[in-house]
Amino acid sequence: MIAPSFLLRCVRMAARALALLPLALAAASAERPNIVLIVADDHGPEAIGAYGNRVVRTPHLDALAADGTRFTHAFCTSASCSPSRSVLLTGQQNHRNGMYGLQHQDHHFSSLDTVKSLPVRLGQAGYRTARIGKFHVGPEAVYAFDTVLSGGAANDPDSLGRSPVAMAEQTRPVLESKDPRPFFLFFASDDPHRANAVLPNGKPTFDTYPAPNRFGNRDAGYPGVTEVVFRPEDVIVPPWLPDTPICRAEIAEYYRAIARLDQGVGRLVALLKETGHYERTLIVYLSDNGPAFPGAKTTLYDPGIRLPLIVRAPGRTRPGSVQEAMVTWADVTPTLLEVAGVLGSVGRDELDGRSFRAALDGAPVPDRDEIYASHSLHEITMYYPMRAVRTRRYKLIHNIASGLVFPSALDLVQSPTWVGLMRSGGTVFGRRPVAQFLRRPPFELYDLETDPDEIVNLADSPAHRAVRDQLIAKVRAFQETTRDPWRHKWNYE
Amino acid sequence: MIAPSFLLRCVRMAARALALLPLALAAASAERPNIVLIVADDHGPEAIGAYGNRVVRTPHLDALAADGTRFTHAFCTSASCSPSRSVLLTGQQNHRNGMYGLQHQDHHFSSLDTVKSLPVRLGQAGYRTARIGKFHVGPEAVYAFDTVLSGGAANDPDSLGRSPVAMAEQTRPVLESKDPRPFFLFFASDDPHRANAVLPNGKPTFDTYPAPNRFGNRDAGYPGVTEVVFRPEDVIVPPWLPDTPICRAEIAEYYRAIARLDQGVGRLVALLKETGHYERTLIVYLSDNGPAFPGAKTTLYDPGIRLPLIVRAPGRTRPGSVQEAMVTWADVTPTLLEVAGVLGSVGRDELDGRSFRAALDGAPVPDRDEIYASHSLHEITMYYPMRAVRTRRYKLIHNIASGLVFPSALDLVQSPTWVGLMRSGGTVFGRRPVAQFLRRPPFELYDLETDPDEIVNLADSPAHRAVRDQLIAKVRAFQETTRDPWRHKWNYE
Repeated sequence: MIAPSFLLRCVRMAARALALLPLALAAASAERPNIVLIVADDHGPEAIGAYGNRVVRTPHLDALAADGTRFTHAFCTSASCSPSRSVLLTGQQNHRNGMYGLQHQDHHFSSLDTVKSLPVRLGQAGYRTARIGKFHVGPEAVYAFDTVLSGGAANDPDSLGRSPVAMAEQTRPVLESKDPRPFFLFFASDDPHRANAVLPNGKPTFDTYPAPNRFGNRDAGYPGVTEVVFRPEDVIVPPWLPDTPICRAEIAEYYRAIARLDQGVGRLVALLKETGHYERTLIVYLSDNGPAFPGAKTTLYDPGIRLPLIVRAPGRTRPGSVQEAMVTWADVTPTLLEVAGVLGSVGRDELDGRSFRAALDGAPVPDRDEIYASHSLHEITMYYPMRAVRTRRYKLIHNIASGLVFPSALDLVQSPTWVGLMRSGGTVFGRRPVAQFLRRPPFELYDLETDPDEIVNLADSPAHRAVRDQLIAKVRAFQETTRDPWRHKWNYE
Repeated sequence: MIAPSFLLRCVRMAARALALLPLALAAASAERPNIVLIVADDHGPEAIGAYGNRVVRTPHLDALAADGTRFTHAFCTSASCSPSRSVLLTGQQNHRNGMYGLQHQDHHFSSLDTVKSLPVRLGQAGYRTARIGKFHVGPEAVYAFDTVLSGGAANDPDSLGRSPVAMAEQTRPVLESKDPRPFFLFFASDDPHRANAVLPNGKPTFDTYPAPNRFGNRDAGYPGVTEVVFRPEDVIVPPWLPDTPICRAEIAEYYRAIARLDQGVGRLVALLKETGHYERTLIVYLSDNGPAFPGAKTTLYDPGIRLPLIVRAPGRTRPGSVQEAMVTWADVTPTLLEVAGVLGSVGRDELDGRSFRAALDGAPVPDRDEIYASHSLHEITMYYPMRAVRTRRYKLIHNIASGLVFPSALDLVQSPTWVGLMRSGGTVFGRRPVAQFLRRPPFELYDLETDPDEIVNLADSPAHRAVRDQLIAKVRAFQETTRDPWRHKWNYE
């Protein structure tokens, strides 16, 4: 029999060893910065001061850009919330990690149990990990964080994700912790996503026509937020949206939600400074996909996938720089793993993206002149797989389910902007004929230099046959490399 | 402070109460039979002796039918393995329980966490529950059985599901248990599904042309199985298959797998008799969907969904009877819950099907003259949602994604039967033009009395407009009642 005193000694020794662990990890990670990944919901770059919009009010994002690097050619790979976040947090395309569509309700997509996510990898590398706000990926075990400061369902009107200043305040336990390990904070707002209104019969709806969707704005405001109200006549209507009164009214609401979100970012940065973390924290601001308007979100057109990316890296030497390297959200996980010093331990074939750490400080980097995108579904009923390659000059989209009418997300097809146009008999949405938006050929090829709005399809132009075939070959190779289940369609249909 | 002796007494009392529990449950369920649900994989009624095939050898299935009731109008609701099993085991359509497609590998579908399945309900009703062989549904927690005698992945050549006699032997722990509670045994073979062959490069394939797929048959045979080999010239080619040498060779392999499965059923029935359970056990034999040939599996044509159903109920008074009531796999869970005496405790809106218990003994039952079917996906890349209603005379299929080429499952498009026809330039498969099989209009309407092979689409026939519109209205009502996510397509596309 083992003496109780011996057992007691063993327990004490173990406890002492455990107590030393954080110090050992801290020593090992002395040079590793904290990482704050801020993910906005449906925020396009066209509505940020630093990206040239002089009407919207984003002083804190503008300050972050002035103190860091603003990317001009950053892209999500799927303009749908859950798929895009799954790519961000795994470094794998949605068609590889299993998150083919939305995670919530009856859409019910989830990543494969075998996937190893960014928070899990960072946790194993000695980071403490925490998330707050919108999540929208699953299963929980694959995307495990040490600490869930708050969760919240998708499109939940009571979500904390609509109250970004309160969110920032609730990160204090992470920021004020005495734990010497670096932290990874995933900070994701519900703003500026569209919000459901509740009908008199209790059912939710996005269709409030002729009133605009409120994008989460409410008369009572939100804690710590100074409401910034915009006049429809002042907003900037981008070329891909119709310049109608209802669309202007909706953009005004969208701006207001962005101004709120901006204040949350400002509060979070202030707290990082207050707690002495700012100079040793990598801050990333980006959006999961483009704005929640038809023509952007759920498409692979630039308004859907070309997004804000603002990075403020510790020890930067080029504050306020503009980075033109082409990067995607598939590259974010490898980049952050390199920042954390553990990219080398990850098998190259486990990641579809590649690190752009060298680009974080704004210095020009070579070999960043094309990106790939992959959309599969959004809602379960919205099957419309597309694969695309975009160079600086061209974009080629392969519409795998070309025979279908393009299926519009409920929040977009019910949006007052769309409903208004349909009721008035409009046949052009922005600069794109509605018929062309709804019925797409198997291949679309655009010359972005002469046609930045992607209206003139050159796929059948004899003069562009060579570039088309070259880009199709690239898309096929991308599908092979990333083990796309849809690659079989090339052989069997 | 509580005295230790008092605590000890409490523990003893609790233990005694727990020991009495099985007896109490047994008393409560004195009249409740055991339930054995045998699920074959891709077995059509055209290949069973009791259903009229004089070539295939199914003496044990024939004996079960001779001692019970054989259904002539039994239908799965989705001719795809995982969705069909999910319907069987929940009483809810796939579009409601979340199992829209296959469960394994990158297809990765699973039922909603909120679904309450048959094994869970029976377990709560005092049944002990066990499963053996092919499962192919998930998540495990939703489809929880007390005991997993064996599992096995889909299409795993080493699966126990290819060795049905060994499977039967392995049910002994359930059959020989002294536990007085009734049992629910889910017994599911991999036979007679197609089987992968392994190429010299190590990759699996279904394409072995000009050799037939072996349907799990192997030269070494299987434990306890007497191999029954069929000659291609003897098999019966159903009208929906091409009468080609390679198709005959494949049917011969299919028959051989069925003869093996039949022996497993025979062994299981023998064990039920040997252990004294036969007279108090409800035995159900059915198949998840139609045979793994193009034109059947993954379609809503009768070869895909009209299936064997043989039931041997304790205390039957009409052995060898033939039941013409129209029933579906959505009705199986409510039926078995009624058999177990607990249907009344289940909310009516929790089940899409309805009990056919009254029909089990072969007596004619009223109000069983139409059924509904719902197919969503098979593989993740095989989006082709269809909704159908079938009466005794008509079938109406709504092809929701009509614009797509009908996507063929890998095991079917690679099948030597299909490959052979394509290589020979054939344009008709069975009696159906290949072009018609691959390109389908939004609506198909067939008069099954004059056109049992479902070749002449009457959807645009002026003479059939009334019946078509009536059946379309029924399909829409079905979609509403069963909360089909695809019902929105009626409004938004």
